[in-house]
Amino acid sequence: MVMKYDLGTGDDKNWIVAESSFSKNLLGKAEAIMSLGNGYMGLRSATEEPYVGEVRNLFVAGTFNKSDNLEVSELPNAADVTRMDIRIDGERLDVSSSRTVDYIRALNLKVAELTRSFVWTTSSGKDVALKFRRFVSLDNLHVIGMKMELEALTEAIELSVESGVNAQVSNSGSQHFYEGEKRIYDKKYVEMVTKTVESEIDFMFHTVHHAKVGEIELNQPFMRMDRRIINLTYKCSVTKGQKFSLEKITTVHTSRDQSFAGMILQEMRDQALSTLKACAAEGYDSLLQKHAIAWERKVWSLYKLNIESDNEFDMLAARFALYHLTVMAPAHDERMGIAAKGLSGEGYQGHSFWDTEMFILPFFIYSNPEVARSLLTYRYLGLEGARKKAESNGYEGAMYPWEAAWPSDGEMAQEWGRVDIVTGKQTKIWTGFIEQHITADVAFAVWQYYMVTADQAFMDMYGYEIIFDTARFWASRLEWNDNKQQYCINDVIGPDEYKEHVDNNAFTNYFAHFNMELAMKYYKELKESNPEVFQKLNETLKLDQAITEWHDRIDKIYLPQPSDKDLVVPQDDTYLTKEIIDLTKYKNQSHVNTIFEDYSLEQLSDIQVSKQADLMILFYWLEDKFSKEVKIANYNYYEPKTIHDSSLSLSTHSILANDLNDQPLAYQLFKQACEIDLGPEMKSSDLGMHTASIGGIWQVIVMGFAGMRMMHGELRMNPKLPAHWNKLEFMVNWKGQRLEVVITKDQLLVTAMDRKPVKLEVYGTEYRFDHMLTVCLAEGDN
Amino acid sequence: MVMKYDLGTGDDKNWIVAESSFSKNLLGKAEAIMSLGNGYMGLRSATEEPYVGEVRNLFVAGTFNKSDNLEVSELPNAADVTRMDIRIDGERLDVSSSRTVDYIRALNLKVAELTRSFVWTTSSGKDVALKFRRFVSLDNLHVIGMKMELEALTEAIELSVESGVNAQVSNSGSQHFYEGEKRIYDKKYVEMVTKTVESEIDFMFHTVHHAKVGEIELNQPFMRMDRRIINLTYKCSVTKGQKFSLEKITTVHTSRDQSFAGMILQEMRDQALSTLKACAAEGYDSLLQKHAIAWERKVWSLYKLNIESDNEFDMLAARFALYHLTVMAPAHDERMGIAAKGLSGEGYQGHSFWDTEMFILPFFIYSNPEVARSLLTYRYLGLEGARKKAESNGYEGAMYPWEAAWPSDGEMAQEWGRVDIVTGKQTKIWTGFIEQHITADVAFAVWQYYMVTADQAFMDMYGYEIIFDTARFWASRLEWNDNKQQYCINDVIGPDEYKEHVDNNAFTNYFAHFNMELAMKYYKELKESNPEVFQKLNETLKLDQAITEWHDRIDKIYLPQPSDKDLVVPQDDTYLTKEIIDLTKYKNQSHVNTIFEDYSLEQLSDIQVSKQADLMILFYWLEDKFSKEVKIANYNYYEPKTIHDSSLSLSTHSILANDLNDQPLAYQLFKQACEIDLGPEMKSSDLGMHTASIGGIWQVIVMGFAGMRMMHGELRMNPKLPAHWNKLEFMVNWKGQRLEVVITKDQLLVTAMDRKPVKLEVYGTEYRFDHMLTVCLAEGDN
Repeated sequence: MVMKYDLGTGDDKNWIVAESSFSKNLLGKAEAIMSLGNGYMGLRSATEEPYVGEVRNLFVAGTFNKSDNLEVSELPNAADVTRMDIRIDGERLDVSSSRTVDYIRALNLKVAELTRSFVWTTSSGKDVALKFRRFVSLDNLHVIGMKMELEALTEAIELSVESGVNAQVSNSGSQHFYEGEKRIYDKKYVEMVTKTVESEIDFMFHTVHHAKVGEIELNQPFMRMDRRIINLTYKCSVTKGQKFSLEKITTVHTSRDQSFAGMILQEMRDQALSTLKACAAEGYDSLLQKHAIAWERKVWSLYKLNIESDNEFDMLAARFALYHLTVMAPAHDERMGIAAKGLSGEGYQGHSFWDTEMFILPFFIYSNPEVARSLLTYRYLGLEGARKKAESNGYEGAMYPWEAAWPSDGEMAQEWGRVDIVTGKQTKIWTGFIEQHITADVAFAVWQYYMVTADQAFMDMYGYEIIFDTARFWASRLEWNDNKQQYCINDVIGPDEYKEHVDNNAFTNYFAHFNMELAMKYYKELKESNPEVFQKLNETLKLDQAITEWHDRIDKIYLPQPSDKDLVVPQDDTYLTKEIIDLTKYKNQSHVNTIFEDYSLEQLSDIQVSKQADLMILFYWLEDKFSKEVKIANYNYYEPKTIHDSSLSLSTHSILANDLNDQPLAYQLFKQACEIDLGPEMKSSDLGMHTASIGGIWQVIVMGFAGMRMMHGELRMNPKLPAHWNKLEFMVNWKGQRLEVVITKDQLLVTAMDRKPVKLEVYGTEYRFDHMLTVCLAEGDN
Repeated sequence: MVMKYDLGTGDDKNWIVAESSFSKNLLGKAEAIMSLGNGYMGLRSATEEPYVGEVRNLFVAGTFNKSDNLEVSELPNAADVTRMDIRIDGERLDVSSSRTVDYIRALNLKVAELTRSFVWTTSSGKDVALKFRRFVSLDNLHVIGMKMELEALTEAIELSVESGVNAQVSNSGSQHFYEGEKRIYDKKYVEMVTKTVESEIDFMFHTVHHAKVGEIELNQPFMRMDRRIINLTYKCSVTKGQKFSLEKITTVHTSRDQSFAGMILQEMRDQALSTLKACAAEGYDSLLQKHAIAWERKVWSLYKLNIESDNEFDMLAARFALYHLTVMAPAHDERMGIAAKGLSGEGYQGHSFWDTEMFILPFFIYSNPEVARSLLTYRYLGLEGARKKAESNGYEGAMYPWEAAWPSDGEMAQEWGRVDIVTGKQTKIWTGFIEQHITADVAFAVWQYYMVTADQAFMDMYGYEIIFDTARFWASRLEWNDNKQQYCINDVIGPDEYKEHVDNNAFTNYFAHFNMELAMKYYKELKESNPEVFQKLNETLKLDQAITEWHDRIDKIYLPQPSDKDLVVPQDDTYLTKEIIDLTKYKNQSHVNTIFEDYSLEQLSDIQVSKQADLMILFYWLEDKFSKEVKIANYNYYEPKTIHDSSLSLSTHSILANDLNDQPLAYQLFKQACEIDLGPEMKSSDLGMHTASIGGIWQVIVMGFAGMRMMHGELRMNPKLPAHWNKLEFMVNWKGQRLEVVITKDQLLVTAMDRKPVKLEVYGTEYRFDHMLTVCLAEGDN
């Protein structure tokens, strides 16, 4: 398989992600990176004709279920509607054979349509041209459109296409659905209604085909209902030069749809079937057009991101990031979060991690605050689960789950992971128990959102409550240490997950401290500014009690300091005492996690090796707590020990490198971050997209190269374009106003679209403007 | 795909079922007909390297489970241990490509070993020779042996083989297992322990590999534990001319194993792992040898079936039948019955039907009474479920389930079937409610067993109870008809399942009558011969009450009689009044059930069309109730209306044709019956073997061509060899003694192996002998 990233020309230039040959040996890459979606659902791009090793996934956001009572809730793999069993003269279509030419599969990001075309020669030597098209509508979130076109180029063929709804799929063997009901109306409209076995969510799949050979409609398919499957088979002869076409329009609805609230199943089915019939009447081309318009309106003309670079890949990678940020986000429903793999794979069970708050949310906060608000509302609703978790762990307040599913679920992390090469058992996963910084990450994100958007209504309704109740958790979590005469946070996992059961992870302690400090500030502010809201929260959260404790403890929290000797901040109490080994082999690895072929996780605990950025994230987000010298010293100390086995690592390091004025390194790390999904390592995306990395790409561009940052509620922009870049354009929302930013080598131009006053710091100078600001960028400014 | 049935030469002659080319378009045929097994477990013969459309099945007899609370109990598809992902220079092995030569996959029936060999050329032009071998041991029922050998013929290659235990499999999407526990001991012994979700049966899979390249052992595989999967990957270079070999020995145990009774899980695991280690120490070749010896001892030298025919296929088909009769029968455990598809496919959920009693059991009754006893004991234990079913249907006594799973389960028939082409809904399956003749079939089989074996102990312990309690059911089932002044049995399905909700199906009424008559006879006999057993049964079954009712009703049961006009016996009350249509299209169909593409089941109800033999089975088993003239008239009436959509149909018709002296037709129907699985229709066995048809093959040979029958407790033999046959040899057990029979064109030779007296009727003449009997067969005798 050869992936091409700049295939388009003219209008298509830098809009196309394509593969120009098919390899049955590496299917996951194209399935994931070309996956389609609209936030409501995500459709992995397995080919119509099936291959061994493929992963066919259709996920509907928020439809969590436990497949059995020993499993955690996960996003169930819904019925497959894309598979088509195509036989030509009885032979199964298989493009992996050498009899395939002119193969091209392309995702056009601009219109979010996946196409695939090729000429295939049957085993008896007949040439057939095939083209497939597919989209998941951003106009009507329930619609999947598909189209197949075939032409017999050299001789007549006998064609058979079997297609329908196949619910025999599972999550790697775990089945989430009852078999449900099957029905075909008018020999045409296929209906499958299934229900999840534990959460009892009804899924309704409706599909209809429109098959034609030449001008003749095929209306008498062979109908098959088997276990968990309804298929129609269209058979016909296609003479030389004749064309066959098959349109397949599918709708997917579930009883979790907000528009179905209060309805009984029969009403939902009827409405879903009506929707299908209306869509079928429109046809593929018309539905596609509406979808394309939605992409232009909701994405491209909204975000207006543009990069002029010597390397055209940079522009494509940026668009690729915006594309996936759009398809991954369940913007339509505030009860749902973003999954670590988006809706593009089974990895991490569809759960939300800190990836959202720290890596993805900044994009939405600045570019699409409504979506950010929805995602934070998901966390507000998640207080229910977080309070459960705190209580069951013996703490107060809200302790967010490391892995979150439905808001009321609480902790959903799995308990067992990869094989331990020493014991031969599965390694216990501790994150759900002791990776606790997520709670402060959520509070931090709320604060970011508030500072950037000034959305006071959100704060009054949701934000303060999150910040207060997370602070209550931390206050109860602190452990007094008699030796230190300080409060410690022992037995945790920090962002660097190769160090389990550590005491005083710097990131965790600083963020816990930040969380409590923030709560104290807002206690004071809110009491004065909005006594009514304050009083309500005071009643439920006993704030007047809490504030005493916070006051008493805030300054006694142990915050690891740079060593006098070398300025190195200890990542945790013991990291610096551990063995240092030669990590060259793992730093140069072609895929992640190779270190586990040589070491068990327990053995890694005793080595100065980090999975991912840990202190660097702290430096990035709480940059004013540390001097530049300290940051450089620690970057130089920790980076060589970091093997970037987490996709969250590279973008942070890139931003840090930029902050620390190593632009070439920053640019190199940016490329590497883009290549996590879009690069040559063909198996990296098998389990799905790396959504945090995708969010990180945007952050490197805007927070890194454009040097944008919110500091103490103020906007700052210290642009440092990579040498390869001539121009960078993007937009941000700042305090409710859209700012359009153009950065060239020598100039920064900011336009306030609502002509409302803006205060902006650029390289230490404060500018105030209410329409356009132009700042000359002298070489070497920083 | 070309199936070859006479591939062997010399010693292998007529022992080999083989395919000489591989087609990815038709995988099910070889998977099913070459499936391996030993009654404890059945392993479908999917190839090591996977293909789209394959069905990988491993079933352990008797391990029924409900995948969820809306499903019926079925045999769960256990973890797959046969898959190997083989990559050569990174390319997935795929023999469906044109780069495969000398392909041969062969099941050697004699030693029950499956082999597969071919030379494959990689996409870069390197030739590699591969050979695979596999068996499921008849010596140790828990053992699966596999061996892979590879030679790099032209150039060095990089080889990677991934293999282990894969529990991601399901039953067409329905998952029966919790994920369970995974462990690797000593980087070598793989252990997966899973549990069924409802019946809570523990499954233990243990597997070990022994990989060598040249003389070098490969001991450091890459280990992977993922969801429901443990795989080891062996990687190595194989230089030109060098050989790689991989032995994989697997053991399968479950907590249903009788040898594990009373043990806790840890003890079972330990014992299973010890077994694996012992087997691994022996190695493939030694284990195979023991297995082959078991086949010779337990099968070939026991059954001694031999046919000398112009068509060598006949001998092969007979051996093929004995092979599958062996692998399908859970002879080791009397709590288990034979599934309609044996252990070779998911079809019919592993349930037992009347197929066992009427089509398969005769073979075991005459050839291996111990197995027959075990299968009838399964029905005895099944009285628990049968009584449940009777009670819940408002009847007395024992009403056997149409589909039986675990003995205590009761009715397990599914409720919904194929699509109704008129309504677009699934067709309701009524068999579990109203196909009731199964209850009389079981009683009939008990009687057959008793008459043939004279096993009085079985009758005292189990047999009488079955016969009495089934008779009680029938007595309560009868419905008084005022018009007829007779007892009717209304609203049933007879053997011909294309007629639902009929009144007075002839087969059902006659068999119910037989059942009650038999009970009355045994009531009298037992009361006199064994008052103790009688008294016990009288207490539980209230026989003294029942006998009054039986006496009162037996002669008032309506038994349809031949019409005065044309001697036709009505199959049911309305059959003869229905429309007659031209069935040519369906009589000539290449695969079954094509009539449903034109008619719904409801529409078929109004046509004189039969799925399968109905009256013919009645004539066969209760032959003395009807005159030859009546049989001929009805054969001529019904056969043209019978489209043989059931695999139970052809063998019965063949025996009838033979009885009615149409030997050429009988032979033709025999061939057709053999071809149900072994013929050119490549999709017929996709869901598994047709076990009733396999039993039917033996019946056609022995009950048909050898003309053997038990009549009123006496043995009869009226041989009529097909014109193509010169000799037929077989054995039967008669009243505890082994008789060896040799039939040639002009002579019947019977040897009583224990030299005990035998009474035998041949063409109306009664012979008595106690060693050898020779009867000259004059041409035209009948």
